[in-house]
Amino acid sequence: MDSSKILIRPYIRKVQFYETDQMGIVHHSNYIRWFEEARVDFMEQMGYGYDRATESGVDVAVLEANCKYISMVRFGESVEIAARISKLTQTRMTVEYEIRDSESSVLRSSGYTNHCYISRAKGSPIALGRELPELYSLFERCVQSC
Amino acid sequence: MDSSKILIRPYIRKVQFYETDQMGIVHHSNYIRWFEEARVDFMEQMGYGYDRATESGVDVAVLEANCKYISMVRFGESVEIAARISKLTQTRMTVEYEIRDSESSVLRSSGYTNHCYISRAKGSPIALGRELPELYSLFERCVQSC
Amino acid sequence: MDSSKILIRPYIRKVQFYETDQMGIVHHSNYIRWFEEARVDFMEQMGYGYDRATESGVDVAVLEANCKYISMVRFGESVEIAARISKLTQTRMTVEYEIRDSESSVLRSSGYTNHCYISRAKGSPIALGRELPELYSLFERCVQSC
Amino acid sequence: MDSSKILIRPYIRKVQFYETDQMGIVHHSNYIRWFEEARVDFMEQMGYGYDRATESGVDVAVLEANCKYISMVRFGESVEIAARISKLTQTRMTVEYEIRDSESSVLRSSGYTNHCYISRAKGSPIALGRELPELYSLFERCVQSC
Repeated sequence: MDSSKILIRPYIRKVQFYETDQMGIVHHSNYIRWFEEARVDFMEQMGYGYDRATESGVDVAVLEANCKYISMVRFGESVEIAARISKLTQTRMTVEYEIRDSESSVLRSSGYTNHCYISRAKGSPIALGRELPELYSLFERCVQSC
Repeated sequence: MDSSKILIRPYIRKVQFYETDQMGIVHHSNYIRWFEEARVDFMEQMGYGYDRATESGVDVAVLEANCKYISMVRFGESVEIAARISKLTQTRMTVEYEIRDSESSVLRSSGYTNHCYISRAKGSPIALGRELPELYSLFERCVQSC
Repeated sequence: MDSSKILIRPYIRKVQFYETDQMGIVHHSNYIRWFEEARVDFMEQMGYGYDRATESGVDVAVLEANCKYISMVRFGESVEIAARISKLTQTRMTVEYEIRDSESSVLRSSGYTNHCYISRAKGSPIALGRELPELYSLFERCVQSC
Repeated sequence: MDSSKILIRPYIRKVQFYETDQMGIVHHSNYIRWFEEARVDFMEQMGYGYDRATESGVDVAVLEANCKYISMVRFGESVEIAARISKLTQTRMTVEYEIRDSESSVLRSSGYTNHCYISRAKGSPIALGRELPELYSLFERCVQSC
Protein backbone atom coordinates (compact mmCIF):
# COMPACT_ATOMS: atom_id res chain seq x y z
CA MET A 1 0.00 0.00 0.00
CA ASP A 2 1.26 3.42 -0.95
CA SER A 3 1.79 5.68 2.07
CA SER A 4 3.84 8.43 0.46
CA LYS A 5 2.85 12.03 1.07
CA ILE A 6 0.53 13.62 -1.47
CA LEU A 7 1.30 17.25 -2.27
CA ILE A 8 -1.63 19.48 -3.13
CA ARG A 9 -1.19 22.68 -5.10
CA PRO A 10 -3.08 25.83 -4.06
CA TYR A 11 -6.37 26.44 -5.81
CA ILE A 12 -6.47 29.50 -8.08
CA ARG A 13 -9.67 31.49 -8.31
CA LYS A 14 -10.69 34.65 -10.15
CA VAL A 15 -12.95 37.02 -8.23
CA GLN A 16 -16.40 37.25 -9.80
CA PHE A 17 -18.29 40.52 -10.18
CA TYR A 18 -21.37 39.10 -8.43
CA GLU A 19 -19.23 38.33 -5.38
CA THR A 20 -18.66 42.02 -4.65
CA ASP A 21 -20.89 44.10 -2.39
CA GLN A 22 -21.57 47.82 -2.16
CA MET A 23 -18.37 48.36 -0.13
CA GLY A 24 -16.61 47.55 -3.42
CA ILE A 25 -15.01 44.39 -2.03
CA VAL A 26 -15.82 40.68 -2.03
CA HIS A 27 -18.63 39.99 0.43
CA HIS A 28 -17.29 38.08 3.43
CA SER A 29 -19.75 35.17 3.05
CA ASN A 30 -18.09 34.16 -0.23
CA TYR A 31 -14.85 33.17 1.50
CA ILE A 32 -16.75 30.27 3.09
CA ARG A 33 -17.73 29.18 -0.44
CA TRP A 34 -14.15 29.57 -1.64
CA PHE A 35 -13.00 27.31 1.20
CA GLU A 36 -15.45 24.72 -0.11
CA GLU A 37 -14.15 25.13 -3.66
CA ALA A 38 -10.61 24.63 -2.37
CA ARG A 39 -11.68 21.45 -0.49
CA VAL A 40 -13.35 20.07 -3.59
CA ASP A 41 -10.27 20.87 -5.69
CA PHE A 42 -8.09 19.29 -2.98
CA MET A 43 -9.97 16.00 -3.21
CA GLU A 44 -9.80 16.07 -6.99
CA GLN A 45 -6.03 16.54 -6.92
CA MET A 46 -5.87 13.74 -4.35
CA GLY A 47 -7.53 11.42 -6.86
CA TYR A 48 -10.90 10.94 -5.12
CA GLY A 49 -13.41 13.59 -6.13
CA TYR A 50 -16.03 14.78 -3.69
CA ASP A 51 -18.73 13.77 -6.17
CA ARG A 52 -17.39 10.19 -5.91
CA ALA A 53 -17.70 10.33 -2.10
CA THR A 54 -21.30 11.55 -2.29
CA GLU A 55 -22.10 8.89 -4.92
CA SER A 56 -20.70 6.31 -2.48
CA GLY A 57 -23.24 7.62 0.02
CA VAL A 58 -20.90 9.65 2.21
CA ASP A 59 -21.16 13.38 2.85
CA VAL A 60 -18.35 15.36 4.42
CA ALA A 61 -20.52 17.59 6.61
CA VAL A 62 -19.37 20.93 8.02
CA LEU A 63 -19.42 21.20 11.82
CA GLU A 64 -17.75 24.59 12.11
CA ALA A 65 -16.37 27.27 9.84
CA ASN A 66 -14.04 30.09 10.79
CA CYS A 67 -12.66 32.87 8.67
CA LYS A 68 -10.39 35.82 9.47
CA TYR A 69 -10.55 38.72 7.02
CA ILE A 70 -7.06 40.18 6.86
CA SER A 71 -7.02 42.36 3.75
CA MET A 72 -9.68 43.16 1.19
CA VAL A 73 -10.21 41.36 -2.11
CA ARG A 74 -11.57 43.19 -5.14
CA PHE A 75 -13.04 42.41 -8.54
CA GLY A 76 -10.30 42.05 -11.16
CA GLU A 77 -8.02 40.19 -8.74
CA SER A 78 -7.30 36.48 -8.40
CA VAL A 79 -6.64 34.60 -5.21
CA GLU A 80 -4.82 31.40 -4.49
CA ILE A 81 -6.19 29.26 -1.70
CA ALA A 82 -3.91 26.82 0.07
CA ALA A 83 -5.84 24.11 1.91
CA ARG A 84 -4.28 21.49 4.18
CA ILE A 85 -5.63 18.80 6.45
CA SER A 86 -4.27 19.67 9.88
CA LYS A 87 -6.13 17.02 11.90
CA LEU A 88 -7.64 13.70 10.89
CA THR A 89 -9.37 11.00 12.90
CA GLN A 90 -11.77 8.22 11.96
CA THR A 91 -14.69 10.56 12.71
CA ARG A 92 -13.35 14.10 12.31
CA MET A 93 -11.23 16.25 10.04
CA THR A 94 -9.92 19.82 10.26
CA VAL A 95 -8.95 21.68 7.10
CA GLU A 96 -7.01 24.94 7.33
CA TYR A 97 -6.90 27.59 4.62
CA GLU A 98 -4.82 30.56 3.59
CA ILE A 99 -6.07 32.89 0.89
CA ARG A 100 -3.44 35.04 -0.80
CA ASP A 101 -3.45 37.44 -3.69
CA SER A 102 -2.21 35.33 -6.59
CA GLU A 103 0.13 38.04 -7.85
CA SER A 104 1.53 39.71 -4.74
CA SER A 105 1.06 36.77 -2.34
CA VAL A 106 -0.30 39.22 0.24
CA LEU A 107 -2.37 37.33 2.81
CA ARG A 108 -6.07 38.03 2.44
CA SER A 109 -7.60 35.55 4.83
CA SER A 110 -6.97 32.52 7.00
CA GLY A 111 -9.50 30.08 8.34
CA TYR A 112 -10.50 26.54 9.06
CA THR A 113 -13.42 24.16 8.77
CA ASN A 114 -14.21 21.17 10.98
CA HIS A 115 -15.94 18.16 9.49
CA CYS A 116 -17.51 14.82 10.25
CA TYR A 117 -18.52 12.10 7.80
CA ILE A 118 -22.20 11.29 7.36
CA SER A 119 -23.74 8.18 5.84
CA ARG A 120 -26.68 9.15 3.65
CA ALA A 121 -28.34 5.80 4.18
CA LYS A 122 -28.02 5.88 7.98
CA GLY A 123 -28.32 9.66 8.26
CA SER A 124 -25.69 9.58 10.99
CA PRO A 125 -21.93 10.07 11.51
CA ILE A 126 -19.66 7.17 10.58
CA ALA A 127 -16.05 6.06 10.93
CA LEU A 128 -14.61 6.91 7.52
CA GLY A 129 -11.88 4.23 7.51
CA ARG A 130 -14.51 1.52 7.82
CA GLU A 131 -16.93 3.01 5.27
CA LEU A 132 -14.56 4.28 2.57
CA PRO A 133 -11.06 2.96 3.44
CA GLU A 134 -9.56 4.17 0.17
CA LEU A 135 -10.71 7.75 0.80
CA TYR A 136 -9.53 7.64 4.41
CA SER A 137 -6.03 6.46 3.51
CA LEU A 138 -5.78 9.15 0.82
CA PHE A 139 -6.72 11.77 3.42
CA GLU A 140 -4.04 10.29 5.72
CA ARG A 141 -1.41 10.76 3.05
CA CYS A 142 -2.33 14.46 2.86
CA VAL A 143 -2.17 15.30 6.58
CA GLN A 144 0.38 18.01 7.31
CA SER A 145 1.64 19.11 10.63
CA CYS A 146 2.25 22.83 11.04
CA MET B 1 -65.89 21.73 -4.58
CA ASP B 2 -64.82 25.29 -4.00
CA SER B 3 -64.02 27.11 -7.21
CA SER B 4 -63.96 30.69 -5.95
CA LYS B 5 -61.04 32.90 -6.87
CA ILE B 6 -58.14 33.01 -4.43
CA LEU B 7 -56.57 36.43 -4.01
CA ILE B 8 -52.87 36.54 -3.26
CA ARG B 9 -51.24 39.53 -1.61
CA PRO B 10 -47.88 40.82 -2.89
CA TYR B 11 -44.82 39.49 -1.11
CA ILE B 12 -42.85 42.07 0.87
CA ARG B 13 -39.09 41.76 1.00
CA LYS B 14 -36.32 43.83 2.56
CA VAL B 15 -33.15 44.18 0.50
CA GLN B 16 -30.21 42.45 2.14
CA PHE B 17 -26.73 43.96 2.26
CA TYR B 18 -25.16 40.83 0.77
CA GLU B 19 -27.43 41.22 -2.27
CA THR B 20 -25.71 44.43 -3.36
CA ASP B 21 -22.75 44.56 -5.73
CA GLN B 22 -19.98 47.09 -6.28
CA MET B 23 -22.28 49.24 -8.43
CA GLY B 24 -24.08 49.96 -5.14
CA ILE B 25 -27.29 48.26 -6.29
CA VAL B 26 -28.86 44.82 -5.91
CA HIS B 27 -27.09 42.37 -8.22
CA HIS B 28 -29.41 41.37 -11.05
CA SER B 29 -29.16 37.62 -10.35
CA ASN B 30 -30.99 38.10 -7.05
CA TYR B 31 -34.23 39.10 -8.77
CA ILE B 32 -34.50 35.50 -10.02
CA ARG B 33 -34.25 34.38 -6.39
CA TRP B 34 -36.85 36.95 -5.34
CA PHE B 35 -39.21 35.57 -7.99
CA GLU B 36 -38.77 32.16 -6.36
CA GLU B 37 -39.44 33.59 -2.91
CA ALA B 38 -42.62 35.19 -4.25
CA ARG B 39 -43.72 31.84 -5.80
CA VAL B 40 -43.11 30.03 -2.53
CA ASP B 41 -45.03 32.71 -0.61
CA PHE B 42 -47.80 32.52 -3.21
CA MET B 43 -48.26 28.78 -2.62
CA GLU B 44 -48.23 29.29 1.12
CA GLN B 45 -50.97 31.92 0.90
CA MET B 46 -52.86 29.54 -1.41
CA GLY B 47 -52.81 26.94 1.36
CA TYR B 48 -50.49 24.37 -0.24
CA GLY B 49 -46.86 25.08 0.60
CA TYR B 50 -44.12 24.24 -1.87
CA ASP B 51 -42.49 22.05 0.78
CA ARG B 52 -45.70 19.97 0.80
CA ALA B 53 -45.49 19.53 -2.98
CA THR B 54 -41.88 18.36 -2.80
CA GLU B 55 -42.74 16.02 0.08
CA SER B 56 -45.47 14.57 -2.14
CA GLY B 57 -42.73 13.87 -4.68
CA VAL B 58 -43.46 16.69 -7.12
CA ASP B 59 -41.05 19.45 -8.08
CA VAL B 60 -42.17 22.56 -9.92
CA ALA B 61 -39.17 22.84 -12.24
CA VAL B 62 -38.13 26.06 -13.99
CA LEU B 63 -38.06 25.89 -17.79
CA GLU B 64 -37.38 29.56 -18.45
CA ALA B 65 -36.80 32.73 -16.48
CA ASN B 66 -37.02 36.28 -17.78
CA CYS B 67 -36.40 39.52 -15.96
CA LYS B 68 -36.47 43.14 -17.09
CA TYR B 69 -34.54 45.58 -14.91
CA ILE B 70 -36.46 48.83 -14.99
CA SER B 71 -35.09 50.89 -12.10
CA MET B 72 -32.39 50.18 -9.54
CA VAL B 73 -32.95 48.73 -6.08
CA ARG B 74 -30.67 49.65 -3.19
CA PHE B 75 -29.86 48.46 0.31
CA GLY B 76 -32.17 50.05 2.87
CA GLU B 77 -35.18 49.71 0.56
CA SER B 78 -37.99 47.16 0.56
CA VAL B 79 -39.74 45.76 -2.46
CA GLU B 80 -43.14 44.24 -2.94
CA ILE B 81 -43.41 41.47 -5.46
CA ALA B 82 -46.75 40.72 -7.08
CA ALA B 83 -46.87 37.24 -8.60
CA ARG B 84 -49.75 35.90 -10.66
CA ILE B 85 -50.36 32.73 -12.64
CA SER B 86 -51.03 33.92 -16.16
CA LYS B 87 -51.20 30.51 -17.88
CA LEU B 88 -51.95 27.05 -16.52
CA THR B 89 -52.24 23.69 -18.22
CA GLN B 90 -51.95 20.13 -16.95
CA THR B 91 -48.24 20.18 -17.83
CA ARG B 92 -47.18 23.83 -17.81
CA MET B 93 -47.53 27.01 -15.81
CA THR B 94 -46.44 30.61 -16.39
CA VAL B 95 -46.01 32.97 -13.46
CA GLU B 96 -45.63 36.70 -14.03
CA TYR B 97 -44.05 39.13 -11.60
CA GLU B 98 -43.90 42.82 -10.91
CA ILE B 99 -41.42 44.18 -8.39
CA ARG B 100 -42.19 47.63 -7.00
CA ASP B 101 -40.65 49.80 -4.33
CA SER B 102 -42.81 49.12 -1.29
CA GLU B 103 -43.02 52.81 -0.36
CA SER B 104 -43.24 54.69 -3.65
CA SER B 105 -44.71 51.83 -5.76
CA VAL B 106 -42.24 52.73 -8.52
CA LEU B 107 -41.80 49.76 -10.84
CA ARG B 108 -38.39 48.13 -10.40
CA SER B 109 -38.73 45.02 -12.52
CA SER B 110 -41.11 42.79 -14.41
CA GLY B 111 -40.57 39.21 -15.45
CA TYR B 112 -41.92 35.72 -15.80
CA THR B 113 -40.99 32.10 -15.22
CA ASN B 114 -42.23 29.05 -17.12
CA HIS B 115 -42.58 25.77 -15.30
CA CYS B 116 -43.35 22.11 -15.70
CA TYR B 117 -44.10 19.55 -12.98
CA ILE B 118 -41.61 16.75 -12.35
CA SER B 119 -42.18 13.50 -10.49
CA ARG B 120 -39.18 12.71 -8.31
CA ALA B 121 -39.86 8.98 -8.50
CA LYS B 122 -40.18 8.91 -12.28
CA GLY B 123 -37.70 11.72 -12.90
CA SER B 124 -39.95 12.98 -15.69
CA PRO B 125 -42.69 15.55 -16.36
CA ILE B 126 -46.21 14.71 -15.24
CA ALA B 127 -49.77 15.94 -15.59
CA LEU B 128 -50.32 17.79 -12.32
CA GLY B 129 -54.08 17.30 -12.15
CA ARG B 130 -53.63 13.53 -12.12
CA GLU B 131 -50.71 13.51 -9.65
CA LEU B 132 -51.77 16.18 -7.16
CA PRO B 133 -55.38 17.16 -8.01
CA GLU B 134 -55.77 19.32 -4.91
CA LEU B 135 -52.74 21.41 -5.83
CA TYR B 136 -53.86 21.71 -9.44
CA SER B 137 -57.32 22.93 -8.55
CA LEU B 138 -55.84 25.47 -6.13
CA PHE B 139 -53.60 26.75 -8.93
CA GLU B 140 -56.71 26.96 -11.15
CA ARG B 141 -58.46 29.17 -8.62
CA CYS B 142 -55.49 31.58 -8.75
CA VAL B 143 -55.24 32.01 -12.53
CA GLN B 144 -55.67 35.61 -13.57
CA SER B 145 -56.10 36.98 -17.01
CA CYS B 146 -54.37 40.28 -17.74
CA MET C 1 -28.86 61.34 27.88
CA ASP C 2 -30.74 58.09 27.87
CA SER C 3 -28.63 55.19 29.08
CA SER C 4 -31.33 52.58 29.65
CA LYS C 5 -30.86 49.11 28.22
CA ILE C 6 -32.31 48.45 24.78
CA LEU C 7 -33.87 45.02 24.33
CA ILE C 8 -33.65 43.48 20.89
CA ARG C 9 -36.03 40.75 19.75
CA PRO C 10 -34.73 37.76 17.81
CA TYR C 11 -34.91 38.03 14.04
CA ILE C 12 -37.32 35.60 12.35
CA ARG C 13 -36.38 34.19 8.98
CA LYS C 14 -37.99 31.68 6.62
CA VAL C 15 -35.63 29.30 4.87
CA GLN C 16 -35.53 29.91 1.12
CA PHE C 17 -35.49 27.10 -1.44
CA TYR C 18 -32.39 28.52 -3.16
CA GLU C 19 -30.53 28.29 0.15
CA THR C 20 -30.65 24.48 0.13
CA ASP C 21 -27.96 22.27 -1.38
CA GLN C 22 -27.99 18.73 -2.72
CA MET C 23 -27.66 17.32 0.81
CA GLY C 24 -31.26 18.57 1.22
CA ILE C 25 -30.27 21.10 3.89
CA VAL C 26 -29.40 24.78 4.00
CA HIS C 27 -25.88 25.29 2.67
CA HIS C 28 -23.55 26.28 5.49
CA SER C 29 -22.38 29.50 3.81
CA ASN C 30 -25.87 30.98 4.17
CA TYR C 31 -25.64 31.10 7.97
CA ILE C 32 -22.98 33.81 7.58
CA ARG C 33 -25.52 35.78 5.54
CA TRP C 34 -28.22 35.17 8.14
CA PHE C 35 -25.88 36.57 10.80
CA GLU C 36 -25.60 39.70 8.68
CA GLU C 37 -29.39 39.91 8.30
CA ALA C 38 -29.73 39.62 12.08
CA ARG C 39 -27.14 42.41 12.60
CA VAL C 40 -28.98 44.67 10.17
CA ASP C 41 -32.30 43.92 11.88
CA PHE C 42 -30.64 44.54 15.26
CA MET C 43 -29.56 48.03 14.23
CA GLU C 44 -32.99 48.77 12.83
CA GLN C 45 -34.66 47.78 16.11
CA MET C 46 -32.05 49.87 17.91
CA GLY C 47 -33.22 52.90 15.93
CA TYR C 48 -30.12 53.47 13.77
CA GLY C 49 -30.29 51.48 10.54
CA TYR C 50 -27.13 50.16 8.93
CA ASP C 51 -28.01 52.08 5.78
CA ARG C 52 -27.86 55.28 7.86
CA ALA C 53 -24.36 54.34 9.09
CA THR C 54 -23.11 53.73 5.55
CA GLU C 55 -24.71 56.98 4.37
CA SER C 56 -22.81 58.72 7.17
CA GLY C 57 -19.65 57.26 5.62
CA VAL C 58 -19.03 54.47 8.15
CA ASP C 59 -18.88 50.78 7.33
CA VAL C 60 -18.99 48.12 10.04
CA ALA C 61 -16.42 45.78 8.49
CA VAL C 62 -16.15 42.08 9.34
CA LEU C 63 -12.79 40.98 10.77
CA GLU C 64 -13.74 37.41 11.62
CA ALA C 65 -16.74 35.14 11.32
CA ASN C 66 -17.31 31.88 13.16
CA CYS C 67 -20.20 29.48 12.90
CA LYS C 68 -20.90 26.14 14.56
CA TYR C 69 -23.41 23.91 12.78
CA ILE C 70 -25.29 22.04 15.48
CA SER C 71 -28.37 20.62 13.79
CA MET C 72 -29.59 20.80 10.20
CA VAL C 73 -32.03 23.36 8.81
CA ARG C 74 -34.38 22.46 5.96
CA PHE C 75 -36.62 24.18 3.47
CA GLY C 76 -40.10 24.72 4.91
CA GLU C 77 -38.70 25.65 8.31
CA SER C 78 -38.21 29.05 9.92
CA VAL C 79 -35.40 30.06 12.21
CA GLU C 80 -35.10 32.72 14.83
CA ILE C 81 -31.74 34.36 15.22
CA ALA C 82 -30.83 35.99 18.53
CA ALA C 83 -27.98 38.48 18.16
CA ARG C 84 -26.29 40.27 21.03
CA ILE C 85 -23.29 42.56 21.37
CA SER C 86 -20.98 40.75 23.77
CA LYS C 87 -17.99 43.11 23.53
CA LEU C 88 -17.75 46.76 22.53
CA THR C 89 -14.83 49.16 22.41
CA GLN C 90 -14.21 52.40 20.52
CA THR C 91 -12.60 50.39 17.72
CA ARG C 92 -14.02 46.87 17.95
CA MET C 93 -17.29 45.00 18.44
CA THR C 94 -18.17 41.33 18.88
CA VAL C 95 -21.65 40.10 18.04
CA GLU C 96 -22.77 36.64 19.14
CA TYR C 97 -25.58 34.65 17.53
CA GLU C 98 -27.82 31.74 18.30
CA ILE C 99 -30.00 30.27 15.58
CA ARG C 100 -32.96 28.20 16.75
CA ASP C 101 -35.87 26.52 15.03
CA SER C 102 -38.68 29.03 15.42
CA GLU C 103 -41.21 26.34 16.39
CA SER C 104 -39.29 23.85 18.50
CA SER C 105 -36.54 26.23 19.74
CA VAL C 106 -34.00 23.49 19.02
CA LEU C 107 -30.55 25.03 18.66
CA ARG C 108 -29.37 24.96 15.05
CA SER C 109 -26.21 27.04 15.23
CA SER C 110 -24.15 29.38 17.33
CA GLY C 111 -21.48 31.79 16.17
CA TYR C 112 -19.91 35.20 16.37
CA THR C 113 -18.55 37.97 14.21
CA ASN C 114 -15.82 40.48 15.07
CA HIS C 115 -15.96 43.94 13.59
CA CYS C 116 -14.12 47.22 13.27
CA TYR C 117 -15.46 50.53 11.98
CA ILE C 118 -14.12 51.94 8.71
CA SER C 119 -14.37 55.49 7.42
CA ARG C 120 -15.16 55.46 3.72
CA ALA C 121 -13.46 58.81 3.21
CA LYS C 122 -10.25 57.82 5.01
CA GLY C 123 -10.41 54.15 4.03
CA SER C 124 -9.13 53.25 7.46
CA PRO C 125 -10.40 52.15 10.91
CA ILE C 126 -11.81 54.81 13.19
CA ALA C 127 -12.95 55.30 16.77
CA LEU C 128 -16.72 55.04 16.48
CA GLY C 129 -17.54 57.23 19.50
CA ARG C 130 -15.74 60.16 17.90
CA GLU C 131 -17.14 59.65 14.39
CA LEU C 132 -20.76 58.69 15.12
CA PRO C 133 -21.34 59.28 18.86
CA GLU C 134 -25.09 58.61 18.61
CA LEU C 135 -24.51 55.19 17.05
CA TYR C 136 -21.82 54.32 19.57
CA SER C 137 -23.99 55.17 22.56
CA LEU C 138 -26.88 53.14 21.12
CA PHE C 139 -24.51 50.17 20.74
CA GLU C 140 -23.44 50.72 24.38
CA ARG C 141 -27.03 50.48 25.54
CA CYS C 142 -27.32 47.08 23.82
CA VAL C 143 -24.21 45.40 25.29
CA GLN C 144 -25.07 42.28 27.22
CA SER C 145 -22.82 40.31 29.46
CA CYS C 146 -23.25 36.53 29.29
CA MET D 1 -6.96 50.68 -37.25
CA ASP D 2 -7.43 46.96 -36.87
CA SER D 3 -10.91 45.82 -37.85
CA SER D 4 -10.31 42.06 -38.10
CA LYS D 5 -12.72 39.73 -36.34
CA ILE D 6 -11.83 38.65 -32.82
CA LEU D 7 -12.64 35.05 -32.01
CA ILE D 8 -13.62 34.27 -28.44
CA ARG D 9 -13.30 30.78 -27.00
CA PRO D 10 -16.07 29.35 -24.81
CA TYR D 11 -15.64 29.81 -21.07
CA ILE D 12 -15.12 26.60 -19.10
CA ARG D 13 -16.61 26.34 -15.64
CA LYS D 14 -16.75 23.60 -13.01
CA VAL D 15 -20.00 23.27 -11.13
CA GLN D 16 -19.60 24.17 -7.45
CA PHE D 17 -21.24 22.20 -4.65
CA TYR D 18 -22.82 25.34 -3.17
CA GLU D 19 -24.56 25.96 -6.49
CA THR D 20 -26.73 22.86 -6.13
CA ASP D 21 -30.16 22.85 -4.49
CA GLN D 22 -32.23 20.15 -2.82
CA MET D 23 -33.44 18.88 -6.23
CA GLY D 24 -29.82 17.70 -6.65
CA ILE D 25 -29.18 20.04 -9.58
CA VAL D 26 -27.67 23.49 -10.05
CA HIS D 27 -30.15 26.13 -8.87
CA HIS D 28 -31.51 28.04 -11.85
CA SER D 29 -30.47 31.47 -10.50
CA ASN D 30 -26.80 30.52 -10.90
CA TYR D 31 -27.04 30.41 -14.69
CA ILE D 32 -27.53 34.19 -14.64
CA ARG D 33 -24.26 34.43 -12.71
CA TRP D 34 -22.53 32.09 -15.15
CA PHE D 35 -23.66 34.34 -18.02
CA GLU D 36 -21.94 37.20 -16.21
CA GLU D 37 -18.78 35.14 -15.72
CA ALA D 38 -18.79 34.34 -19.44
CA ARG D 39 -19.21 38.07 -20.30
CA VAL D 40 -16.31 39.00 -18.04
CA ASP D 41 -14.15 36.26 -19.57
CA PHE D 42 -15.21 37.43 -23.03
CA MET D 43 -13.97 40.96 -22.37
CA GLU D 44 -10.73 39.63 -20.95
CA GLN D 45 -10.09 37.53 -24.05
CA MET D 46 -10.98 40.59 -26.13
CA GLY D 47 -8.17 42.48 -24.41
CA TYR D 48 -10.25 44.98 -22.41
CA GLY D 49 -11.20 43.60 -18.99
CA TYR D 50 -14.48 44.59 -17.38
CA ASP D 51 -12.53 45.89 -14.38
CA ARG D 52 -10.80 48.33 -16.76
CA ALA D 53 -14.20 49.56 -18.00
CA THR D 54 -15.46 50.15 -14.46
CA GLU D 55 -12.19 51.88 -13.54
CA SER D 56 -12.77 54.16 -16.54
CA GLY D 57 -16.11 55.02 -14.98
CA VAL D 58 -18.36 52.94 -17.25
CA ASP D 59 -20.66 50.16 -16.10
CA VAL D 60 -22.24 47.73 -18.53
CA ALA D 61 -25.65 47.56 -16.87
CA VAL D 62 -28.11 44.69 -17.36
CA LEU D 63 -31.51 45.70 -18.79
CA GLU D 64 -32.91 42.21 -19.28
CA ALA D 65 -31.86 38.64 -18.68
CA ASN D 66 -33.41 35.52 -20.18
CA CYS D 67 -32.52 31.91 -19.62
CA LYS D 68 -34.00 28.67 -20.95
CA TYR D 69 -33.26 25.57 -18.88
CA ILE D 70 -32.96 22.71 -21.34
CA SER D 71 -31.28 19.89 -19.42
CA MET D 72 -30.10 19.63 -15.84
CA VAL D 73 -26.57 20.33 -14.61
CA ARG D 74 -25.14 18.48 -11.63
CA PHE D 75 -22.23 18.73 -9.22
CA GLY D 76 -19.17 16.95 -10.60
CA GLU D 77 -19.83 18.22 -14.12
CA SER D 78 -18.26 21.08 -16.06
CA VAL D 79 -19.96 23.34 -18.51
CA GLU D 80 -18.68 25.39 -21.39
CA ILE D 81 -20.42 28.68 -22.03
CA ALA D 82 -20.28 30.21 -25.49
CA ALA D 83 -21.07 33.94 -25.45
CA ARG D 84 -21.45 36.11 -28.53
CA ILE D 85 -22.49 39.68 -29.15
CA SER D 86 -25.49 39.42 -31.45
CA LYS D 87 -26.46 43.09 -31.52
CA LEU D 88 -24.44 46.23 -30.87
CA THR D 89 -25.34 49.91 -31.08
CA GLN D 90 -23.84 53.02 -29.49
CA THR D 91 -26.26 52.66 -26.58
CA ARG D 92 -27.23 48.98 -26.44
CA MET D 93 -25.74 45.49 -26.65
CA THR D 94 -27.25 42.00 -26.73
CA VAL D 95 -25.17 39.02 -25.67
CA GLU D 96 -26.37 35.48 -26.40
CA TYR D 97 -25.25 32.38 -24.55
CA GLU D 98 -25.22 28.64 -24.96
CA ILE D 99 -24.27 26.42 -22.05
CA ARG D 100 -23.17 22.89 -22.94
CA ASP D 101 -21.78 19.99 -20.98
CA SER D 102 -18.05 20.26 -21.51
CA GLU D 103 -17.66 16.52 -22.14
CA SER D 104 -20.74 15.48 -24.08
CA SER D 105 -21.56 18.92 -25.61
CA VAL D 106 -25.22 18.31 -24.74
CA LEU D 107 -27.06 21.64 -24.62
CA ARG D 108 -27.94 22.64 -21.06
CA SER D 109 -29.23 26.15 -21.51
CA SER D 110 -29.55 29.06 -23.91
CA GLY D 111 -30.20 32.67 -23.06
CA TYR D 112 -29.42 36.31 -23.61
CA THR D 113 -28.81 39.54 -21.75
CA ASN D 114 -29.52 43.08 -22.94
CA HIS D 115 -27.29 45.89 -21.77
CA CYS D 116 -26.79 49.63 -21.82
CA TYR D 117 -23.69 51.59 -20.81
CA ILE D 118 -23.82 53.81 -17.73
CA SER D 119 -21.47 56.60 -16.77
CA ARG D 120 -20.74 56.45 -13.04
CA ALA D 121 -20.08 60.17 -12.90
CA LYS D 122 -23.28 61.14 -14.70
CA GLY D 123 -25.32 58.22 -13.37
CA SER D 124 -26.99 57.95 -16.76
CA PRO D 125 -26.76 55.99 -20.04
CA ILE D 126 -24.09 57.06 -22.51
CA ALA D 127 -23.01 56.45 -26.10
CA LEU D 128 -20.13 54.00 -25.66
CA GLY D 129 -18.25 54.98 -28.83
CA ARG D 130 -17.90 58.55 -27.56
CA GLU D 131 -16.98 57.61 -23.98
CA LEU D 132 -14.68 54.62 -24.52
CA PRO D 133 -13.99 54.38 -28.27
CA GLU D 134 -11.36 51.64 -27.84
CA LEU D 135 -13.81 49.41 -26.00
CA TYR D 136 -16.57 50.09 -28.52
CA SER D 137 -14.42 49.19 -31.50
CA LEU D 138 -13.28 45.99 -29.78
CA PHE D 139 -16.94 45.06 -29.20
CA GLU D 140 -17.57 45.80 -32.91
CA ARG D 141 -14.87 43.35 -33.92
CA CYS D 142 -16.63 40.64 -31.88
CA VAL D 143 -20.16 41.04 -33.27
CA GLN D 144 -21.40 37.86 -34.90
CA SER D 145 -24.45 37.45 -37.00
CA CYS D 146 -26.41 34.23 -36.50
